[in-house]
Amino acid sequence: MSRRYNFCAGPAALPTEVLEQAQQDLLDWQGRGLSVMEMSHRSDEFQGIARQAQEDLCELLSIPDQYHCLFVQGGATAQFSAVPLNLMGLTGKADYLNTGLWSSKAIEEARRFGEVNLVADGQPASYCSLAPIEQWRFSEAADYFHYTPNETIGGFELNEIPEVPSAPLVADMSSTLLSRPLDVSRFGLIYAGAQKNIGPAGLTLVLVREDLLDRALAVVPRTLHYRLIADHHSMLNTPPTYGWYLAGLVFQWLKREGGLGVMAERNRRKADKLYAAIDGSGFYANPVEPQYRSRMNVPFTLADGTLNDAFLEGAEESGLLNLRGHRSVGGMRASLYNAVPEAAVDALVGYMNEFERRYG
Amino acid sequence: MSRRYNFCAGPAALPTEVLEQAQQDLLDWQGRGLSVMEMSHRSDEFQGIARQAQEDLCELLSIPDQYHCLFVQGGATAQFSAVPLNLMGLTGKADYLNTGLWSSKAIEEARRFGEVNLVADGQPASYCSLAPIEQWRFSEAADYFHYTPNETIGGFELNEIPEVPSAPLVADMSSTLLSRPLDVSRFGLIYAGAQKNIGPAGLTLVLVREDLLDRALAVVPRTLHYRLIADHHSMLNTPPTYGWYLAGLVFQWLKREGGLGVMAERNRRKADKLYAAIDGSGFYANPVEPQYRSRMNVPFTLADGTLNDAFLEGAEESGLLNLRGHRSVGGMRASLYNAVPEAAVDALVGYMNEFERRYG
Repeated sequence: MSRRYNFCAGPAALPTEVLEQAQQDLLDWQGRGLSVMEMSHRSDEFQGIARQAQEDLCELLSIPDQYHCLFVQGGATAQFSAVPLNLMGLTGKADYLNTGLWSSKAIEEARRFGEVNLVADGQPASYCSLAPIEQWRFSEAADYFHYTPNETIGGFELNEIPEVPSAPLVADMSSTLLSRPLDVSRFGLIYAGAQKNIGPAGLTLVLVREDLLDRALAVVPRTLHYRLIADHHSMLNTPPTYGWYLAGLVFQWLKREGGLGVMAERNRRKADKLYAAIDGSGFYANPVEPQYRSRMNVPFTLADGTLNDAFLEGAEESGLLNLRGHRSVGGMRASLYNAVPEAAVDALVGYMNEFERRYG
Repeated sequence: MSRRYNFCAGPAALPTEVLEQAQQDLLDWQGRGLSVMEMSHRSDEFQGIARQAQEDLCELLSIPDQYHCLFVQGGATAQFSAVPLNLMGLTGKADYLNTGLWSSKAIEEARRFGEVNLVADGQPASYCSLAPIEQWRFSEAADYFHYTPNETIGGFELNEIPEVPSAPLVADMSSTLLSRPLDVSRFGLIYAGAQKNIGPAGLTLVLVREDLLDRALAVVPRTLHYRLIADHHSMLNTPPTYGWYLAGLVFQWLKREGGLGVMAERNRRKADKLYAAIDGSGFYANPVEPQYRSRMNVPFTLADGTLNDAFLEGAEESGLLNLRGHRSVGGMRASLYNAVPEAAVDALVGYMNEFERRYG
């Protein structure tokens, strides 16, 4: 067995320790004679697993009491629908910020269920920059303000939580949740597909404040209805039990590693090293305005694009996997989630330097 | 490691061989240096896994060309919404048959999106019997006819595919799909949560005929929209990749075992043995009219209900897990899905006989 360094944007690397634990448990969890996958979600065993995961998540993020932590299916894309379907029931209007491909998908879907006001749009700047908050055009009244703190594809990140008049704040944190400490109390709702920093694809976390549960549109399907899901403790129907269990192992791992403060420092060092390597070369480039650069997803291009395939092939041979950029952006992308060790970044930087010496 | 016999109704037993393969692959799939969980769904590796699973499914069920096989999230409960949202776009009406708790949940949800005509209702007979088809009250015009061939909770099964005037036929086959050969061409749409005979919870299969893809209501969320999902080959958004991979391993196992004909025979033998033990005793009873008895889920009661806990404790000690009946029905339930070996049923019958001798 030889694990390699995996820079995939998602589904992404999981901590090796977590996978080792899962491997050990796979056919027989704690001597009970069956796999976690084979347990009733209503069994004492699985209820214990589920509760422990929720408690650990609350502890890691210091989630205040008035929030529900929902473990659901459907990915962030299902939340693109669930957010307007659940929250647009007051004015039928919402404010959205467009900072990249994921924001714009959320916007497109929200428009199907209500009126969307585009507060600011990074598209004319190719999602590499954004107007300052003073220039954002907020609605007089909106049911919520939606934004994407980190754009996985473009590598565009808002490092500060914006002070917006159109509360509550709703954020797609698919690629940042658990990568650093977070003041959850600033948000009305946070959602995240698991397959970056949380667990396997097929699990989605939703943190939603109690007072937002009762303003749904009439047409919201049962499995997207926050109030129903909250009242049933995420067991309105069978949840993705194995993903929930794996997320729980990831939470335990995060606690053993020292929590989100330690992760934040480590992630900052990883990103700083990679951006320094890019900026220090005349060969690699990242197009995003420095203040908006993502700590999680670092896209970069080569001075000579015809060398892309050679770069990727050499990387694979060096045990550096999944560095190809998103098809809509091209070039390269290195995702530096929690489970990507600092040694992976060192190896990548070493490889980049060598490649530049050879071809630059 | 000692695996026990698991009679859980779902999430349910998986074949031990499948779990062993998954265990071996867990940290490093085929020497690629990463887990299947850590692969991009768009990678060549995962695309190959996904395609193979789809091909094997089509082969096992002899699925005709004009059907799409969708691998989605949300469980059968999400399909309770997706079916009316996608198919009620012509007349706004549908025919439903009520044979148990799952049918009635599907009906309740469909009523939120259109008009439901109840063709026949097993509820007055406590879901143990049903009016013959000649007495069913079909609509003059309906967008589809929905039924639940097997009710997991009540253990009520329609063994024959009904000949209904209100085509297309839509079936929730969560607990029977892959347990026997099936003439898919008789159906417009079949859906099934994976956690019975297919794979882990969090994956749902939808087989839908091409001509039904373009009659959706305007308010269908993206992740429930059959046309969009089909056009994107179930990769409109990140699919539940690990569940898809495990389902693929189950399909391979089914092929090695000899296919669905072999499964049908084995499942019939298992059910026959258990019903014979129940009927042959004066101590155990199953309330369902014999022609409607389920081959997959066998509920039974003890002559003296105060012995339930003693029965269950003794069963656990004998390595027979998860025999408690659904909370809405009480008593016991043994689910006999594909992955439950015949030896498990023999052991259960042996235990039941012994318990009866001791307490009967």
